[in-house]
Amino acid sequence: MRRDTLREIIASLSSAGTSVFRFGAGRRRLSLEALCRQLLDLRGEASVTVVADRLLAAYAELDDDGRARFFATLRDGFGPDLAAVDAAIARYRAAPSPESVQALQQAAESPRQEIFRLLNTAPGGTAALIAMRADLMRLGADAPALAPVERDLGHLLRSWFNRGFLTLERIDWQTPALILEKLIAYESVHEIQGWDDLRRRLADDRRCYAFFHPALPDEPLIFVEVALVQGLAASIQEVLDAPPPAPGAAVAADTAIFYPINTCQPGLHGITFGDFLIKQVADSLARDVPGLGRFSTLSPLPGFRRWLLAELSAPASEIALAPAERERLLREPDDWLPDAPDAQTYAALLLHLGAVYLLRAKRGSEPLDAVARFHLRNGARLERINWLGDRSARGLRESFGLLVNYVYDSRTVAHNHEAYVNAGHIACSAAVRGLLTKRPQRRAGARARPGAER
Amino acid sequence: MRRDTLREIIASLSSAGTSVFRFGAGRRRLSLEALCRQLLDLRGEASVTVVADRLLAAYAELDDDGRARFFATLRDGFGPDLAAVDAAIARYRAAPSPESVQALQQAAESPRQEIFRLLNTAPGGTAALIAMRADLMRLGADAPALAPVERDLGHLLRSWFNRGFLTLERIDWQTPALILEKLIAYESVHEIQGWDDLRRRLADDRRCYAFFHPALPDEPLIFVEVALVQGLAASIQEVLDAPPPAPGAAVAADTAIFYPINTCQPGLHGITFGDFLIKQVADSLARDVPGLGRFSTLSPLPGFRRWLLAELSAPASEIALAPAERERLLREPDDWLPDAPDAQTYAALLLHLGAVYLLRAKRGSEPLDAVARFHLRNGARLERINWLGDRSARGLRESFGLLVNYVYDSRTVAHNHEAYVNAGHIACSAAVRGLLTKRPQRRAGARARPGAER
Amino acid sequence: MRRDTLREIIASLSSAGTSVFRFGAGRRRLSLEALCRQLLDLRGEASVTVVADRLLAAYAELDDDGRARFFATLRDGFGPDLAAVDAAIARYRAAPSPESVQALQQAAESPRQEIFRLLNTAPGGTAALIAMRADLMRLGADAPALAPVERDLGHLLRSWFNRGFLTLERIDWQTPALILEKLIAYESVHEIQGWDDLRRRLADDRRCYAFFHPALPDEPLIFVEVALVQGLAASIQEVLDAPPPAPGAAVAADTAIFYPINTCQPGLHGITFGDFLIKQVADSLARDVPGLGRFSTLSPLPGFRRWLLAELSAPASEIALAPAERERLLREPDDWLPDAPDAQTYAALLLHLGAVYLLRAKRGSEPLDAVARFHLRNGARLERINWLGDRSARGLRESFGLLVNYVYDSRTVAHNHEAYVNAGHIACSAAVRGLLTKRPQRRAGARARPGAER
Amino acid sequence: MRRDTLREIIASLSSAGTSVFRFGAGRRRLSLEALCRQLLDLRGEASVTVVADRLLAAYAELDDDGRARFFATLRDGFGPDLAAVDAAIARYRAAPSPESVQALQQAAESPRQEIFRLLNTAPGGTAALIAMRADLMRLGADAPALAPVERDLGHLLRSWFNRGFLTLERIDWQTPALILEKLIAYESVHEIQGWDDLRRRLADDRRCYAFFHPALPDEPLIFVEVALVQGLAASIQEVLDAPPPAPGAAVAADTAIFYPINTCQPGLHGITFGDFLIKQVADSLARDVPGLGRFSTLSPLPGFRRWLLAELSAPASEIALAPAERERLLREPDDWLPDAPDAQTYAALLLHLGAVYLLRAKRGSEPLDAVARFHLRNGARLERINWLGDRSARGLRESFGLLVNYVYDSRTVAHNHEAYVNAGHIACSAAVRGLLTKRPQRRAGARARPGAER
Repeated sequence: MRRDTLREIIASLSSAGTSVFRFGAGRRRLSLEALCRQLLDLRGEASVTVVADRLLAAYAELDDDGRARFFATLRDGFGPDLAAVDAAIARYRAAPSPESVQALQQAAESPRQEIFRLLNTAPGGTAALIAMRADLMRLGADAPALAPVERDLGHLLRSWFNRGFLTLERIDWQTPALILEKLIAYESVHEIQGWDDLRRRLADDRRCYAFFHPALPDEPLIFVEVALVQGLAASIQEVLDAPPPAPGAAVAADTAIFYPINTCQPGLHGITFGDFLIKQVADSLARDVPGLGRFSTLSPLPGFRRWLLAELSAPASEIALAPAERERLLREPDDWLPDAPDAQTYAALLLHLGAVYLLRAKRGSEPLDAVARFHLRNGARLERINWLGDRSARGLRESFGLLVNYVYDSRTVAHNHEAYVNAGHIACSAAVRGLLTKRPQRRAGARARPGAER
Repeated sequence: MRRDTLREIIASLSSAGTSVFRFGAGRRRLSLEALCRQLLDLRGEASVTVVADRLLAAYAELDDDGRARFFATLRDGFGPDLAAVDAAIARYRAAPSPESVQALQQAAESPRQEIFRLLNTAPGGTAALIAMRADLMRLGADAPALAPVERDLGHLLRSWFNRGFLTLERIDWQTPALILEKLIAYESVHEIQGWDDLRRRLADDRRCYAFFHPALPDEPLIFVEVALVQGLAASIQEVLDAPPPAPGAAVAADTAIFYPINTCQPGLHGITFGDFLIKQVADSLARDVPGLGRFSTLSPLPGFRRWLLAELSAPASEIALAPAERERLLREPDDWLPDAPDAQTYAALLLHLGAVYLLRAKRGSEPLDAVARFHLRNGARLERINWLGDRSARGLRESFGLLVNYVYDSRTVAHNHEAYVNAGHIACSAAVRGLLTKRPQRRAGARARPGAER
Repeated sequence: MRRDTLREIIASLSSAGTSVFRFGAGRRRLSLEALCRQLLDLRGEASVTVVADRLLAAYAELDDDGRARFFATLRDGFGPDLAAVDAAIARYRAAPSPESVQALQQAAESPRQEIFRLLNTAPGGTAALIAMRADLMRLGADAPALAPVERDLGHLLRSWFNRGFLTLERIDWQTPALILEKLIAYESVHEIQGWDDLRRRLADDRRCYAFFHPALPDEPLIFVEVALVQGLAASIQEVLDAPPPAPGAAVAADTAIFYPINTCQPGLHGITFGDFLIKQVADSLARDVPGLGRFSTLSPLPGFRRWLLAELSAPASEIALAPAERERLLREPDDWLPDAPDAQTYAALLLHLGAVYLLRAKRGSEPLDAVARFHLRNGARLERINWLGDRSARGLRESFGLLVNYVYDSRTVAHNHEAYVNAGHIACSAAVRGLLTKRPQRRAGARARPGAER
Repeated sequence: MRRDTLREIIASLSSAGTSVFRFGAGRRRLSLEALCRQLLDLRGEASVTVVADRLLAAYAELDDDGRARFFATLRDGFGPDLAAVDAAIARYRAAPSPESVQALQQAAESPRQEIFRLLNTAPGGTAALIAMRADLMRLGADAPALAPVERDLGHLLRSWFNRGFLTLERIDWQTPALILEKLIAYESVHEIQGWDDLRRRLADDRRCYAFFHPALPDEPLIFVEVALVQGLAASIQEVLDAPPPAPGAAVAADTAIFYPINTCQPGLHGITFGDFLIKQVADSLARDVPGLGRFSTLSPLPGFRRWLLAELSAPASEIALAPAERERLLREPDDWLPDAPDAQTYAALLLHLGAVYLLRAKRGSEPLDAVARFHLRNGARLERINWLGDRSARGLRESFGLLVNYVYDSRTVAHNHEAYVNAGHIACSAAVRGLLTKRPQRRAGARARPGAER
């Protein structure tokens, strides 16, 4: 079946002369506001596409000031008709009913929502709207009055990027370079060092999956990298630096390590796909790789050091440390190297503090750590804290090199999720819980006691 | 790139035991209402998919009474929180602002909208929601109180079936049988008489195009059939019964005849794609078939006879007929055969009445005839009325066999559209306009005066 | 990746004016013989494509006489240079060596082989050559002198249609209609009665697989239809007339019945794919349909009645029948209906004779029956002869309604194959072997004794 | 349509236990010779695939000595039956006829050809045979006795890689990385400096096309890179180092420069696709890029310096140089830098010598230069010699930095080709021909006289 995408055809429509039919209001230059009005007027017509295309082209040429003015126009000039809102309120007050409250809701809907819907008909419209929302969020940081516009657009994007419309695709060395280079650009947790590194991350003992939306076939929305390994990996460098298997060699793995999840579209911020991604990928892997019995992350504690230093300086901290320990932690440089003669003692201290951070430091009833919130809410178990799990400059700077395994266990994930959501209960291995008790440790790390892991 | 659609994976998720992770609230049977509440509770979780699947399965087993009860539950139990609405009204009244009116709009949004969005995550969710809206419209004919539910669902579908997400695809003999059999099922204007007839309609001198949505790859939403012919075709039977060209023979055509547009999804009623379809297809054809210079429809006047008989019986009709003419028209049987000795006189009479119907009979400021409204609004010109253009039983019964050519002329389509929308002006050939004057005709039909055609 | 097939581009090349480069020897009309010489002259040039295209077009316009003349030209005018052959013989005689025998072989190769290779570069060349070989075989029936030409072309096609280049594809309701209609045309064993019948044969409890060659993507080379059933099916009408399963209903089958294998390209006669097809399909099914434990055919005995009538008329037949039995079999009409009061006795007689035919009637050391030779050579076991397994007119006319199950048993297929090929041993169930003994039977058919089946 | 390639299925067949049917002669280890015999015995059987797979696996483990021994076995043990050859000679002598010479040809065909055909049925068989021929050519350099084996395999590959089976595909940034990395590996004329360089070569003002064979979908056979530029490019560094156009910027080009053609498969050496490639690509470009009016190469003279130095040292050279010139050319270092104060004089000298090389230095009746032979035979015109067209180390070392434009002109390409093939006439611009006359030049290079170019 031949396929002329709408977009290809519209591309020809919108350049005068190549289309059979010439649309719309001539070629004269209109203000963005006038184009918005024209869009709403044309609503049901085919020519809406051409006007939408023209509006997006004009928007693309604006600088930040111009964009902020355009957003202010959308906010002030394309809000609901307040007289109609008042009338709908009156009718609702007179007779509250499903009909009258719905009528009120419709009266209160902003015409700018319709403008966004119409802009989507332009070639590249969806991508342009996502970029527009990214602009709104960036500019909105300094101009909170733009928030209603951002919320309207976000509402629409959330509806369109409904998970029912997404496809999960495996990314490998057969994937077009156009998409692969985006992985290199978007991977922000453990940066991809060029094409050779990427190729290694897509070798036979690795997996990469991404969600795509049909309107953006070349743009991954979110992706996860997975390493297939023997045993529960404890160090990200071990994973990243492991040599690839020989071509054609069988991959004998019992554990899938999800090592980073990256979102790719700032304009889709707040529209979550990640919870879904991990479980779907686990399912896909379980069917693909016989012998795979364990699914775990290797996750950062991005706020650990910041929290710790704040605690150490706080007048009333719960953390009880010897003054020397306290001094040392405060003094430790960013690129701190854990080669001191007392490394083991120091490791024990940091593992203890890591456990305190994950289990005791709270934001409301949930852990302070965003990554922990994400996985625990998903039903994972806090399995192990790894001493020097991340030796990168960033890992040392942000979390003294600690890294965490969250395990997704099919037998307990539903129960963990319920207990966490309903009662704030954190599923946690005995080993990690044991770290809460500060005491002399004979050996470095929970890792050394495999018996306690499961 | 391998592609595991979300839907395939979810299909495995939702059958217990095949998934790595078992989700949600056990296996016990819940009421539809309880499942709706569970959906809203789980909102952000992966398990929402499984609950959505379960709800849709339960819905599928309901009879019409059960479905009506479910819709009533959605209306009464999943409307907005009225206390919150009242509070939002109060805040809005106190300080009308973009923020407060948006907050009001959000407070007035029904949670059932969110339920629909969550149902879409189930495998086959989009198709199930379209079917649900078809149910709502069917049952709503007798139960107008269901209208708010139907409107909420319709609002969502209109947003999802935004034209920016649709693809235009050519349908030919290379198309999967699965899709082709749907054309046979959905063609309601000029029924397709089985596979041989379909094959002829997809031969080298024919074209068929349809809009598809990515979530429904096997379901055409709307399609149009086109015949590539020499000269402006005047009879649908001539088009349908013309022998196919020899394989490989060149197609020398100067005119594209759009002979029916069919919509396929009752559940998408009111979400219009047709205006867009004709112009895109014309564009695609112009690039594909060199030498093509004219784009015309061959369209029915579905309400002509009904209108005429009503006029004849009305006390104060504008139509002035001789009593014998009047009597005869009223008496004419459904399967009326135009073989009378005075056929030419009769033809002249009916062509005159057809012109009156199309140009004078109004609904508001627009023509009474829905097909005329559609094409005139699109910028087409009423070019010719064809005597015995449709000799089928239906054609005779509904419109005394008349058929109309609406011509899409690239030089005038924009102007016609504007004049129609702004001033109600109908673009019309001199030949058709001439038919308004009732007078003796020497020969049958506008068709006989080719000089007047252009 | 965009793909311009060679063929599309050549299509434009060969129509003067649309190509950037105009090739070859002008536009004047040349004889086929002259075109052949031109082909050989141009050999390494791009323009060979255009000449090949012209030659094939000229060939297509010839009637049978013209084609026969063209083949005679290929035989007489494009054979090897005999002087060169004689010289190569002399060199070989003087010094037999790998080099000199290879040089002899090359000297004896006909230039017409190279002509065929060059014709393949035309658009549609491969299909045209297959059609040409079909012509050669058809015309060769009356003109055996064309055999060397046919063998040269056959040699080339056998090389090109090497099994390593074929793909096995499943055909279902998602397959393009263009391919499906070919199944209807090519199925000659159990004719497909139009699209409804085809659809039933592609339902969830059926399978259809075909081999394709990359140069003929729309042309199945050979296909097999499979029914997934419970138990060993005994009647083709039961299989063909069984209602399809409800949509979405699970298919619980323990047996795959291969009911016909059809070849599609007469021009590829003698190039065998069938042995490979059954085993590959069985493998594909075993992975696809859990629970499938038995693979069997339901096969005709196409020569049974012909053989039997010849035996009955032969002076010295091994078949000992009572005169009344003999008379009756000779008298039985083509559309014989097995409803006589002595049906059971008669059934026993025919089952006995069927067993004799399959196990005793020989062509050389192999069974006379071509279908039996095919499956036994493949390693299948002659499992059961079914009384009234095929009640169709053809089944009754050709084999008194008998039908055979050949079972492919993974544990014995290799052993059966070896024993058959090396010692002429026929793998056979005890039940069938028992039928060789002619005796009064209590119940009709081997089918009635399931205990003996395995 | 789902597609199980033969190869996937065979992959499962050949690993014992995963297949429904176990094939062939058990699992014991056989010699390569025994496997060859088994292949020929099994010929028509499905199990041939498994034996072929086993033979290729055993071959892959051999070192060069082992491979040479295997090839000797194929030569000595799998040649034709000489008694049968003698008998066929006798029959042919007795009665020369199309039949008897064909029978002789068949008797003289080596069984090793059939072995190669059967090996092709293994998964990856085609690629393995191409690699085997590469081995044969490599080892054959020292062991000419292997030539008959190499010729048999080459004969087969030439038949299989018939141009009618190849597809021309555009390669761009949407192409899978798996294929792109092969471009980097195979480009040997102007090496690709990693992924960034590759990306630039695939930007909007560049094109890359390759031929593929269906059995090797991930392996380009030959590819050509094209630059779309304004005017006839004179320097490869200008082309390679030009900045890419801004994304979305229109490409306004009047000239397509084919800057290298690279073959990718050493095992297909001698099977030519290149002549075809240029013309097809030109045709594809002409349809794609309106405004493109000139097609030219930018080609090396790889043997220029070697030839020149040999001439200078030869006792009887036609080249008449002043002793100082001669001395200097002989002394010039490999990495010679053309920055001398007399650069212009020197340039004139080298351009003169380049013209002599291209137009006068012969191998038989054709130019000594292989690149010149290729393009002139294709009908191109020797348009311009460019002083310092290639400043790379290799360009300086091999050809003193000269580079040539061969122009493909649609109006003359057929005539040029005929004149070259029939009369050895070289199509050549007046400018280049003028360089034959050695004389003082005012300005450097033919390039400086644009008027003479066309």
